[in-house]
Amino acid sequence: MHHPQAASRTDAAQATSDILVRLRARAPRVHCVTNAVAQSFTANVLLAVGCVPSMTLSVEEIGSFVSGAQALLVNLGTFDAERRQATAIALEAATTNKVPWALDPVFVERSEARAAFARELIARRPAVVRLNHAEFATLADAVPSRDATMSYARSNRTVVAVSGETDLITDGQRIASISNGHPLMSKVSAMGCAGSAVLAACLAVETDALRAAIAGLAIIGVAGELAAERSSGPGSFAAAIIDAVHDLEPATLIARTRIN
Amino acid sequence: MHHPQAASRTDAAQATSDILVRLRARAPRVHCVTNAVAQSFTANVLLAVGCVPSMTLSVEEIGSFVSGAQALLVNLGTFDAERRQATAIALEAATTNKVPWALDPVFVERSEARAAFARELIARRPAVVRLNHAEFATLADAVPSRDATMSYARSNRTVVAVSGETDLITDGQRIASISNGHPLMSKVSAMGCAGSAVLAACLAVETDALRAAIAGLAIIGVAGELAAERSSGPGSFAAAIIDAVHDLEPATLIARTRIN
Amino acid sequence: MHHPQAASRTDAAQATSDILVRLRARAPRVHCVTNAVAQSFTANVLLAVGCVPSMTLSVEEIGSFVSGAQALLVNLGTFDAERRQATAIALEAATTNKVPWALDPVFVERSEARAAFARELIARRPAVVRLNHAEFATLADAVPSRDATMSYARSNRTVVAVSGETDLITDGQRIASISNGHPLMSKVSAMGCAGSAVLAACLAVETDALRAAIAGLAIIGVAGELAAERSSGPGSFAAAIIDAVHDLEPATLIARTRIN
Repeated sequence: MHHPQAASRTDAAQATSDILVRLRARAPRVHCVTNAVAQSFTANVLLAVGCVPSMTLSVEEIGSFVSGAQALLVNLGTFDAERRQATAIALEAATTNKVPWALDPVFVERSEARAAFARELIARRPAVVRLNHAEFATLADAVPSRDATMSYARSNRTVVAVSGETDLITDGQRIASISNGHPLMSKVSAMGCAGSAVLAACLAVETDALRAAIAGLAIIGVAGELAAERSSGPGSFAAAIIDAVHDLEPATLIARTRIN
Repeated sequence: MHHPQAASRTDAAQATSDILVRLRARAPRVHCVTNAVAQSFTANVLLAVGCVPSMTLSVEEIGSFVSGAQALLVNLGTFDAERRQATAIALEAATTNKVPWALDPVFVERSEARAAFARELIARRPAVVRLNHAEFATLADAVPSRDATMSYARSNRTVVAVSGETDLITDGQRIASISNGHPLMSKVSAMGCAGSAVLAACLAVETDALRAAIAGLAIIGVAGELAAERSSGPGSFAAAIIDAVHDLEPATLIARTRIN
Repeated sequence: MHHPQAASRTDAAQATSDILVRLRARAPRVHCVTNAVAQSFTANVLLAVGCVPSMTLSVEEIGSFVSGAQALLVNLGTFDAERRQATAIALEAATTNKVPWALDPVFVERSEARAAFARELIARRPAVVRLNHAEFATLADAVPSRDATMSYARSNRTVVAVSGETDLITDGQRIASISNGHPLMSKVSAMGCAGSAVLAACLAVETDALRAAIAGLAIIGVAGELAAERSSGPGSFAAAIIDAVHDLEPATLIARTRIN
């Protein structure tokens, strides 16, 4: 992390490992407002990392589910009336109960209505916004350079995590890059959504949202690398990455996290 | 099973095996009102055991789907308006056509509205209520001891199957315990839901609901043990248990069922 | 293909291989209106074959998603109000923007309302209708013989692809049969739906809908055969067929396609 107060590379990797250990020890419940395509895979990745997933979207229930959760993910992957309504109630419960939340504004570049809704949500101060290059470009009206992401994080008072070949994570003051992951990750549906859920889970055990975001992306990225070594294509990879998340050793995570 | 009229341990294992053989021979259709997270995994487990799954929740269709089915599962995993309405129609069709049904009151401990709905459904006399300790405690207001489960079964005139490290199954007169299964089963989303679907399937080929419930839990539990031997984590385990259900030999099932 | 103008067996296999190569080169986006059980598996199969899946059903978004897509699949697997409405908007966008589409009228034999809706959709001229024997019998009121399928294709001015142990594909003038596939394919939920999605994808890169339908069925059938060689049951098979689709070599596809 390039900043006077920033921890060293080793410290950041150690912090990531500590977060993983706390996830397994505390088993936080992570409520996910996510798209139908992603629900099952996301739940299995959260279970594998040691969390308890919950997924209900029912307007009668989601308030109490979120109130009792330790973190919340809002993913816009299927932007329907049910999920918009669920999101409104979920955010009210999260705000009242100080439940940290992450936003994954999936596919905002494909629909202006979705982008407008994402902007409203960002104004409600997610701890982290996690998105890819095209999504960042749509919301920030800029290429996701180091300067542009830091500026966007500052003006929206949130942590921004832009994923790509190298992930950029910034709170507007500090900035880090992570170069973990594997090309097969882009060949599995809902891999990004599941990664955002892990990131949200990290918020449950780490109050420094920048640290939590780094940990979430490093955990899923390193697991992806390990899984690729044991896979023969995207189908076996989808199972192998769940195995890898489940079996991930803190020492391996420290050794393999490529953070700058 | 501890009761004067109860069959011996060997007889119970044999009955379980007979039920598996009948499932494969008759390929009953099992309609599932289940949560979005569980639908795909549940369908694949039902296919693997030899059944035909159907899953529609559409109010225009579910009546005719249930009327022609051989068993019904009602799972409360996502308790939304669509599923509540679908459940009402499904139960009317099941009652009229004498389609046996099982109830899985998922997460009733997390929402009073859900618990109230579960109580209404239990009053409509499912053949089996399958639930875990926390769910039983919420609905029965008691720890799931042998006495408490038998009492609850008697007063609700249903078979109660409480799953845990040891499963307890009782119709209020007879009681059995099953000690099959593997810890990885709790690391796969929808594993319990899929197990309840197998249990519902057994009701399609066995009129003694206690026997059917025992068979359902034994089949999935033994398959879980076999799958764990071939897995390297929860991701590969989720695929391996489907393979194991599909390949389960009656002789293996008899040999490995740990029933008391 | 038995017709004076029909290409030879070798030409048809070569055309299939060319379509696969174009899919990977162009990475078309395929929008799917499909059932909840099938969404995740379908998305993963489309990713494996080189496409970009999109799945939203939101009435506010689906129009713009379909307008920008290269092909559309309409699958009736869960025939609810949301999907009926989504289908209406999707077809309007497809017609306006000349996006080719395929129809998979799942389970029309189980519900008259569903069959009636399927007939309305067929009147709107899908490029291909892909269905099984029971579904064809319901819609065409005839056993799917070569004559009956050709006649149905002619009178509905569409390509008909009837899947079974041998698939029949006809545009009313030309007819071909494909004998690829493996029995395990019928043991995986949504396998047919995913196959129809691959078929729809082929329409994105091949204007001859008969050729596209043949390619779609051959690709998934050959992948199924290859996957079966590496599987130990339907669970591992579901992952292995995704691997096989992803790794399918054009030369292997040509060598193994059994077309007549």
